[in-house]
Amino acid sequence: MKSHFLKIASIQHACTPKYADNLQTTEELLERAAEAGAHLVLLPELHTRPYFCQEAHPSYFDWAEPIPGPSSEKLQQLAARLNLIIVGSIFEKRTTGVYHNTAVVLDRDGSFKGLYRKMHIPEDPGYYEKYYFTPGENTTQPGTAFTPITTSLGKLGVLICWDQWFPEAARLMALSGADILLYPTAIGWDPRDEANEQQKQLEAWQTIQKSHAIANHLPVIVANRCGFEENPSDTETGIQFWGHSFICGAQGEILAQTTDSQSTLICAEVDLIQTDTLRRIWPFFRDRRIDAYAGLSQRTINYTRHE
Amino acid sequence: MKSHFLKIASIQHACTPKYADNLQTTEELLERAAEAGAHLVLLPELHTRPYFCQEAHPSYFDWAEPIPGPSSEKLQQLAARLNLIIVGSIFEKRTTGVYHNTAVVLDRDGSFKGLYRKMHIPEDPGYYEKYYFTPGENTTQPGTAFTPITTSLGKLGVLICWDQWFPEAARLMALSGADILLYPTAIGWDPRDEANEQQKQLEAWQTIQKSHAIANHLPVIVANRCGFEENPSDTETGIQFWGHSFICGAQGEILAQTTDSQSTLICAEVDLIQTDTLRRIWPFFRDRRIDAYAGLSQRTINYTRHE
Repeated sequence: MKSHFLKIASIQHACTPKYADNLQTTEELLERAAEAGAHLVLLPELHTRPYFCQEAHPSYFDWAEPIPGPSSEKLQQLAARLNLIIVGSIFEKRTTGVYHNTAVVLDRDGSFKGLYRKMHIPEDPGYYEKYYFTPGENTTQPGTAFTPITTSLGKLGVLICWDQWFPEAARLMALSGADILLYPTAIGWDPRDEANEQQKQLEAWQTIQKSHAIANHLPVIVANRCGFEENPSDTETGIQFWGHSFICGAQGEILAQTTDSQSTLICAEVDLIQTDTLRRIWPFFRDRRIDAYAGLSQRTINYTRHE
Repeated sequence: MKSHFLKIASIQHACTPKYADNLQTTEELLERAAEAGAHLVLLPELHTRPYFCQEAHPSYFDWAEPIPGPSSEKLQQLAARLNLIIVGSIFEKRTTGVYHNTAVVLDRDGSFKGLYRKMHIPEDPGYYEKYYFTPGENTTQPGTAFTPITTSLGKLGVLICWDQWFPEAARLMALSGADILLYPTAIGWDPRDEANEQQKQLEAWQTIQKSHAIANHLPVIVANRCGFEENPSDTETGIQFWGHSFICGAQGEILAQTTDSQSTLICAEVDLIQTDTLRRIWPFFRDRRIDAYAGLSQRTINYTRHE
């Protein structure tokens, strides 16, 4: 069942080494979201922990939890108490030796609506995610790994951080009926990079996510981590998580954003009917050349026609 | 053979009902591009004619030309005389009853390097392109319709106007080895739309094309038509082509742009090696989930998992 207007909040927060403190921050910001009249709230990636992926160390697997488990159950309780749809992020222990970077969706009555396991896993100096996270799998028929999660107020196309750089992921969510795209995120600067390079990275990150709104005529909500976190291994300089969470409408127009990097909350009302209006005026979905897209399932395309 | 730096020009120009006048404008701007030291020049969509697709009338098929034909041969001569790679746009008559919206690529020695026939064809009030243009076909193996054209200075991922809204097209060009993405364009405002709506459309158009640079780590060059053209059928209000041609680098950063809507030329030097540098730091191509993208070849994806 689709609402016309949906009041959405994005929570941006810094994370400390203490689980209880982080959960307390989350709870306070969720309470503020409820007071602001939000129906749906997005939390940043792995919001109960420091960004442990800065180093690869087996001890961090202690922090993984089953789903349902303490964090998901706590979020369910908060969803019910505050009458909010909550999209949270959990370091999931699925079974011994299988861990995921997982988003969970809890409805306003506290019911568990579904989960999404991060499909695109980064691995760079300071972001050792391939060490920790088994990629989400393509379990059923082709393409259905990117499946929106149905809630009482619409279908949520939940993706996670690195997924945001892949237009394929957003498109598959849209083709599967998503009403909105959501990106819990933990991205930041290497403090050694120059200001000009940092600015280019930030703008690229904003642009690519706005483009998913535009290409698919869907509102997009982004919740990023903020604050500086030292690298515990001391081999890198740490990460300045850049905040700048935002909510944009289905033409990519900014509805709410924060330009600072403090823990904060932003809210906007999105119009879910706008998607239908825009798809009539700009009928991209009519014109997709599905006869000619098979190459998208290739790693590279070799050709000889012009060489 | 790939150059490190390539000086690129985008020509923005208005078009009149007179073929010879339009060609004269094109020639003068190409001469200016050569004087500015450009190696490669992109012309706007269908630059030898007014935008006849504002109405559907069989008489306009008289304007279609074979390739090779007068316009492509004229552009070949100019390419050789000015020592420029020229990407031009032609209303192509392929055979009786088969017409295309086609881009041609001429190398600096005047040789014909290849053509691209527009794959995504719009059809909206005032843009009756499905009436005129047979879509480019997927002639060889899957995906190869979107094949870059090899020149003496790099592989050109030439796409045309409406193609710019489809991340799939840019991605397929990138997977096929494009060094740069090029979008000859004819897009404008309906003068009846409010300024706020016009601004949102313009920004969406800029954002989606910058996003192709970002997603694929390729420079993008856009040449738009400018000027107001009345609707000859008098059933619509005509189109104010919005200009705003631009060139951006492989992080989506603007290198050159024009904010006015006069006939003009913009130039920028793009660094083709930047693509390699960026793909090491942001390895999107390593992480594409090609096992899970089959749904991109579907019109919509039906699912039952969550309903």
